[in-house]
Amino acid sequence: MQPKPIKAAITAVGGYVPEDVLNNADLEKMVDTSNDWIVSRTGIHERRILKEEGIGTSFMALKAIDDLKQKVADWNPETIDLIIFATITPDMPLSATAAYVASQIGATQAFGYDLTAACSGFLYGLSTAAAFIGSGRYKKVLVIGADKMSSIVDYEDRTTCVLFGDGAGAVLMEASTNGYGWEDEILRMNGEQRMALTIKAGGSMQPITSEALKNKDNYLQQEGRTVYKMAVSGMCQVTLDILANNQLSSDDLAYVVPHQANLRIIEGLQDRLGVAEQKVLKNIQYYGNTTAATLPLVLNDYHHKFKAGDKIILTAFGGGFTWGAAYLTWAYST
Amino acid sequence: MQPKPIKAAITAVGGYVPEDVLNNADLEKMVDTSNDWIVSRTGIHERRILKEEGIGTSFMALKAIDDLKQKVADWNPETIDLIIFATITPDMPLSATAAYVASQIGATQAFGYDLTAACSGFLYGLSTAAAFIGSGRYKKVLVIGADKMSSIVDYEDRTTCVLFGDGAGAVLMEASTNGYGWEDEILRMNGEQRMALTIKAGGSMQPITSEALKNKDNYLQQEGRTVYKMAVSGMCQVTLDILANNQLSSDDLAYVVPHQANLRIIEGLQDRLGVAEQKVLKNIQYYGNTTAATLPLVLNDYHHKFKAGDKIILTAFGGGFTWGAAYLTWAYST
Repeated sequence: MQPKPIKAAITAVGGYVPEDVLNNADLEKMVDTSNDWIVSRTGIHERRILKEEGIGTSFMALKAIDDLKQKVADWNPETIDLIIFATITPDMPLSATAAYVASQIGATQAFGYDLTAACSGFLYGLSTAAAFIGSGRYKKVLVIGADKMSSIVDYEDRTTCVLFGDGAGAVLMEASTNGYGWEDEILRMNGEQRMALTIKAGGSMQPITSEALKNKDNYLQQEGRTVYKMAVSGMCQVTLDILANNQLSSDDLAYVVPHQANLRIIEGLQDRLGVAEQKVLKNIQYYGNTTAATLPLVLNDYHHKFKAGDKIILTAFGGGFTWGAAYLTWAYST
Repeated sequence: MQPKPIKAAITAVGGYVPEDVLNNADLEKMVDTSNDWIVSRTGIHERRILKEEGIGTSFMALKAIDDLKQKVADWNPETIDLIIFATITPDMPLSATAAYVASQIGATQAFGYDLTAACSGFLYGLSTAAAFIGSGRYKKVLVIGADKMSSIVDYEDRTTCVLFGDGAGAVLMEASTNGYGWEDEILRMNGEQRMALTIKAGGSMQPITSEALKNKDNYLQQEGRTVYKMAVSGMCQVTLDILANNQLSSDDLAYVVPHQANLRIIEGLQDRLGVAEQKVLKNIQYYGNTTAATLPLVLNDYHHKFKAGDKIILTAFGGGFTWGAAYLTWAYST
């Protein structure tokens, strides 16, 4: 008989968004845009911005962990084995923000790293946590998805500055005690169109120079149309595949938790999956695209509705391109 | 009976360093230093530099994979499940270099990400690969350690420019078929002294500005003395602990593969472990510190000496701080 692998489950969720709100009226004063245009094309009404100078993504991650701790009965940071920090906006290019978070929360027995996979980063981090727990080698994993997008957005580029916001979320993953948890995943990447969503300068291909600063190549740039098309078809394909692989129909699902990049992408996915609108969870109206933070922020906003055994799909698409879908059964009721 | 977890093993190794040599005589002309000083303090005689403009770390990683492919009888990129790319010098800040490598080699069924943990990145990547294989969910993982350090080194700073070089290594990890492979690990991180080895600007704490460029805060900066002390004691402690946990003495070891940061650090480790000099593998003389690439480059240079069953310790220490040791039994003879 094949031994049953150890199933990982999310056992707690926390989130944080900064207090400062950047709404569409504010943006109308900054670039040539309008509330109507932004809402009709993206569904976004406002975003949160971490305004204080000299404060990085770790600030928000630590706040999200503070929130998470309140929901854990026996919180003891010394029992955390691993901290995976999904982000494209680490505090510094060197060293790992995960190490800073570890020492700030007292996780003295942990190792960890920063994981870069853009908007799919948190999903990939969950998969990695599930693998460490599944191997039996680690028991308690903290997975963080956090991005200070305002640090890489050009607030003179009206095609991108309306889309992004700052935020952080965190989940605890442990071995399942009731049979519910991480069930299956289909994750993929393909770099052929990596220039469609990129920060050109600041890496080893093109280190930062004053010329690069002048060209604004230190900011996020996006070919919106390419990304839109690929995002809908990419998330749709892996979601349909994972439903088929697990003999599920969209009616069997309690919720779909999609990456929050654009309300139109989410609606495109919803239509093509044929899933009821109220099952497709959204908070993009209030936060915009917070990159690695969207999935945990949605989980944090809605997990009080989830019941043990609820069948849930997480799906994401992002720069790289990277994309994927995971099927899980929620492990607890609140 | 507790089911035995699936053991992961390294089944092939590849490496690449650029052709251009930067030796100590060259550096004597660039900064106020001397061959004698460099050799006596660091043990480094020369480094390799990727000189061509516009070419990033992926260029070297793809060459290392080309080398790896020659050593795999049934190479088929479509069977690769996961690509972990350990680096602090990705091609671009966004998107993941792993995605580009995947599409360049035809790994159409893989997912993956860039993993940031500085000099411990490759060791952490191996641990992650071992977890995915151990969970039974993935079978074939490509782990890359590659850094184009010349893209973040200030060649007017004599305290750092003598230390670093460019390089890439890659290994294939699969389920063990003969009982040998990844045995144990102790991995740790602590961010309290993260400013001792850092690139201050270019992250979310301090985005790049022309002021930051003027201050050279876009380059790697290091407090050498702090890092030296922590590196010796950090690597020594986890290595002694892992030997004790596995009832091993240093005499039982066939080889120790330490991170190549400075020959004096390696010698300090060697003395404190009481292990014979010829068992402690080194190639720092020729490559300098290639960060995430040192461990796979040492494996690539020496694996023809390894025999199936050889007990080997890998140990690393780097910015973060991040550090650790792994114990493995080598899985094949060449």
